Amino acid sequence: MNTKHQTNLLTQHNCVLCEQVGGRLVFKNQYYRVLAADANSPDANFPAFYRLIWNQHVVEMTDLPAFQQAIVWQAILKIEMAMREVLQAHKINLASFGNVVAHLHWHFIARFEWDSHFPNPVWASPLRTVDPLELEKIQALHPRLDEQIVKSLSASTAL
Amino acid sequence: MNTKHQTNLLTQHNCVLCEQVGGRLVFKNQYYRVLAADANSPDANFPAFYRLIWNQHVVEMTDLPAFQQAIVWQAILKIEMAMREVLQAHKINLASFGNVVAHLHWHFIARFEWDSHFPNPVWASPLRTVDPLELEKIQALHPRLDEQIVKSLSASTAL
Repeated sequence: MNTKHQTNLLTQHNCVLCEQVGGRLVFKNQYYRVLAADANSPDANFPAFYRLIWNQHVVEMTDLPAFQQAIVWQAILKIEMAMREVLQAHKINLASFGNVVAHLHWHFIARFEWDSHFPNPVWASPLRTVDPLELEKIQALHPRLDEQIVKSLSASTAL
Repeated sequence: MNTKHQTNLLTQHNCVLCEQVGGRLVFKNQYYRVLAADANSPDANFPAFYRLIWNQHVVEMTDLPAFQQAIVWQAILKIEMAMREVLQAHKINLASFGNVVAHLHWHFIARFEWDSHFPNPVWASPLRTVDPLELEKIQALHPRLDEQIVKSLSASTAL
């Protein structure tokens, strides 16, 4: 590991993702953790809003060495597939911004045609009020989704 | 190639990304094309808004076979790096939604602290009016960015 990446071993003071878990913990390994939006977060108003957070303080994907980039990528694909299989969502949205908290993390948002923002990105203005019964039906699948994510990520971490 | 993936060889009627290039063409190979936002598109009001569009009509990353997923991923990393090197952006934003046009594509948005939406995602409400001189300074770097993208993607397609 070269000098550049040694700096990634450090946590950064005043970085909320270095200091807090960042949501409801679903899975964790030595490299990253996967979270669901906390029930009291505005993101919980979407049917399923999950995140992958890299444990170390890194800003961009291209700050990681190639083998760690591959670990993120395999996790992205497995989380997307778990969402598709368990939720039967209309579309899976993937995004990595880090403008507010510049600590590498990915958003996974299962989208449904009836959700508050569809087809707009969830960061745009809402288009409708969500039927709470529809929302609850998908939220009731979270335990199965969590289980599927744990199962597939546990398998993929045997590097 | 199995039956499932043979369907990916087809274009889909009434899909705008099957029927149109989708922007100013920067690079194309047998798998995907890379575009910059057309000058007359609202996306051109951001300093640098590029896209990777998979040539065949595929909806989700996990619809692709593994070797094609790897091709997308390598391209994502190379485009991110080219943006970092040439533009010295504050942050690179990556996203794949496909809610409106369900044909696999990725957004690459170089973000600057002075851009109209920073630190919000570009799909949120604007926070300020952009200084056209700042915008022009970055737009003047697009030819160098294009060149860097072509160079790095050409190298990576030697599979």
